[in-house]
Amino acid sequence: MALIVQKFGGTSVADPAKIKAVAERVLRTKKQGNQMVVVLSAMAGETNRFVDMAGQMQEQPDEREFDVLLASGEQVTIALFAMAVKGMGGDAVSLLGDQVKIVTDSVHTRARIKSIDTSLINKHLKENRIVVVAGFQGVTEADDLTTLGRGGSDTTAVALSAVLKADMCEIFTDVEGIYTTDPNVYAAARKIDRITYDEMLELASLGAKVLDIRSVGMAKRYKVPLHVRSTFTENDGTWVVEENKNMESMLVSGVTYSRNEARITISKIHDIPGIASKIFTPISDAGVVVDMIIQNTRAGEMTDMTFTVPRTDYKKAMDIVRNLDIAGPDQVSGSEEIIKVSIVGVGMRNHSGIATTMFHVLAREGINIHMISTSEIKVSCVIDEKYTELAVRALHDAFSLEKDNQPEEE
Amino acid sequence: MALIVQKFGGTSVADPAKIKAVAERVLRTKKQGNQMVVVLSAMAGETNRFVDMAGQMQEQPDEREFDVLLASGEQVTIALFAMAVKGMGGDAVSLLGDQVKIVTDSVHTRARIKSIDTSLINKHLKENRIVVVAGFQGVTEADDLTTLGRGGSDTTAVALSAVLKADMCEIFTDVEGIYTTDPNVYAAARKIDRITYDEMLELASLGAKVLDIRSVGMAKRYKVPLHVRSTFTENDGTWVVEENKNMESMLVSGVTYSRNEARITISKIHDIPGIASKIFTPISDAGVVVDMIIQNTRAGEMTDMTFTVPRTDYKKAMDIVRNLDIAGPDQVSGSEEIIKVSIVGVGMRNHSGIATTMFHVLAREGINIHMISTSEIKVSCVIDEKYTELAVRALHDAFSLEKDNQPEEE
Repeated sequence: MALIVQKFGGTSVADPAKIKAVAERVLRTKKQGNQMVVVLSAMAGETNRFVDMAGQMQEQPDEREFDVLLASGEQVTIALFAMAVKGMGGDAVSLLGDQVKIVTDSVHTRARIKSIDTSLINKHLKENRIVVVAGFQGVTEADDLTTLGRGGSDTTAVALSAVLKADMCEIFTDVEGIYTTDPNVYAAARKIDRITYDEMLELASLGAKVLDIRSVGMAKRYKVPLHVRSTFTENDGTWVVEENKNMESMLVSGVTYSRNEARITISKIHDIPGIASKIFTPISDAGVVVDMIIQNTRAGEMTDMTFTVPRTDYKKAMDIVRNLDIAGPDQVSGSEEIIKVSIVGVGMRNHSGIATTMFHVLAREGINIHMISTSEIKVSCVIDEKYTELAVRALHDAFSLEKDNQPEEE
Repeated sequence: MALIVQKFGGTSVADPAKIKAVAERVLRTKKQGNQMVVVLSAMAGETNRFVDMAGQMQEQPDEREFDVLLASGEQVTIALFAMAVKGMGGDAVSLLGDQVKIVTDSVHTRARIKSIDTSLINKHLKENRIVVVAGFQGVTEADDLTTLGRGGSDTTAVALSAVLKADMCEIFTDVEGIYTTDPNVYAAARKIDRITYDEMLELASLGAKVLDIRSVGMAKRYKVPLHVRSTFTENDGTWVVEENKNMESMLVSGVTYSRNEARITISKIHDIPGIASKIFTPISDAGVVVDMIIQNTRAGEMTDMTFTVPRTDYKKAMDIVRNLDIAGPDQVSGSEEIIKVSIVGVGMRNHSGIATTMFHVLAREGINIHMISTSEIKVSCVIDEKYTELAVRALHDAFSLEKDNQPEEE
């Protein structure tokens, strides 16, 4: 008998018929002799409806009240889901974030989980019920409702898996799993059967949207085996697991890209101690997250500084830089027409030449590299946006990702 | 400085624009130097939407889960309302039933309040906030959500008024107050300025729909001055208050009627001890509430028994009676085409002849009386349904209800 946590997102529970279909599926897994904890999001569309109504109330909706509003969405789905299970002859009980006692800090709209009380869930599991938990929500020690922000229901599912010591955490979504690259960009993209937490972390941080980075990090920390799979098929999806020896033969697991990039360059500034701090402190104070930074040495005392920011923050960052007292208007330039393409793979650790191959492939296609950033298991290059698809396809082919280069395992 | 509890029903908060209008009104009363507690229902239409979805999940929706589902409705309105107040520069905080600790018994969908913790509300009032409480909902000692059933938000408002020792409890609705009779039936109906708890209890139990009888009973018990008024005007509505000397000059306060009536007659049965028990025990066991009972003595050992039940339970009650082993099929008759018309007034206590006037008026109009029931402050007659409007108008005129027969007070 396994203890399985299953999470279904908003598109999987978008209407009563879909909720019933999911309930039937969960009940089937239960009947195979498993203990089941189900984590649900709000019905797709509800959040937009709430955001719209809140916007009519207050220009910048109060965050405490916004959380109260949003949390009502999961309350609806867990109640309907529990009814659906009972309607099919099963037994289920719905639990809200505050009933489980998913205690968070008090940072509304993006709270972090501090502790989870497992006693009520374990009681219901022992009584053979399917436990249906509201995703995305928690409660502060002062009993205020909170929500967990982007990817919040995934976080709930992984956190519950960790504290309950579940055998697996299954994240159901509208795609079949994690792909070697975006199938919309390159049809040769292949579903990955198995990937390490570290690779998944890099993929998530570099633009892959299926799993939120916070959930992956938590899964890694607590060694929760994650299974990302489709709500609409019975096929196995992608397992996100701990690294093992067999996996090291994978050189590159995937190619990913992010369009949310913009570049700012300040040229010919005086290269004096403290110049970086002078530039980046006000940017960071404004809440803009700087990604890559490159400083080129010029002859003499002058230097060029180039960095990337989220495209959505480009104008804000540009204004800050222009108002700095370090460069004239003609020394500041930038572009919103760049993207970051990355290759990720744990195999890079033990194989030299992966980065070189990437640079060579891009050069062969006539794609100029503006910036490079590397870590132990990834290489990222900033290139012109118009080359996105070309670069993804060329790299996917060069590393033979269309072939299953993963060893068979247990 | 007064402490005022104001309750707004679903039609008053049916959409974002209405919620803002109500917020503005509450804020205005706050700015006049009052402490404000606001109790809100779910947006009109939400409950129907929930009932519909629940019905798709399970033929007879699980009551615990149904309460979880329904309770999400008020959660939406209190959050939006608090945002609206803040958007207008005021300060407000929303509180759910379980946050206030409105503790109820565990009879789902029609729970009764056992206790309310005032500490959190008082804390926020002291900090000068408008406290926005979700109506209709509570929480059991085991931390399960409950709802209070019909008129639940009124009950929340009156109960909060009682424990907070509020100066008044204002129930906002889509009519101007309590009328001498149904204005849809007789345009001469007049809004009553002031009425006693006892009269209101009779009116509510005899068919008037504006206030639920449970809230009125609670208001009487805790001496909460109730003010029933319109959301859409600034006019005073109807005050429901304790009886005082001046009021005794009112002979009749109102004429009301109920169409949810049906009559069953069992004729020529043996008048032996225990016959009433034999008839009414199975009916009561089936959950049917019998209202009026009349037993006519016949010559010899035979008797006729007539009683009324809610029209919605007529068929159920008929089946039970037919299956009793006391009367043949031709001895059982009944009608769904009857109504109960009633006059209510505390003045009856000290004035004889009120009932006689009623009988005389009905007779003059050619209306046959099937059954009569009286209490200290009301007289009810069962008549044929086709005479409803005629009877209401004739009685309204006979007691001059179109004139304000209430004395001026303070």
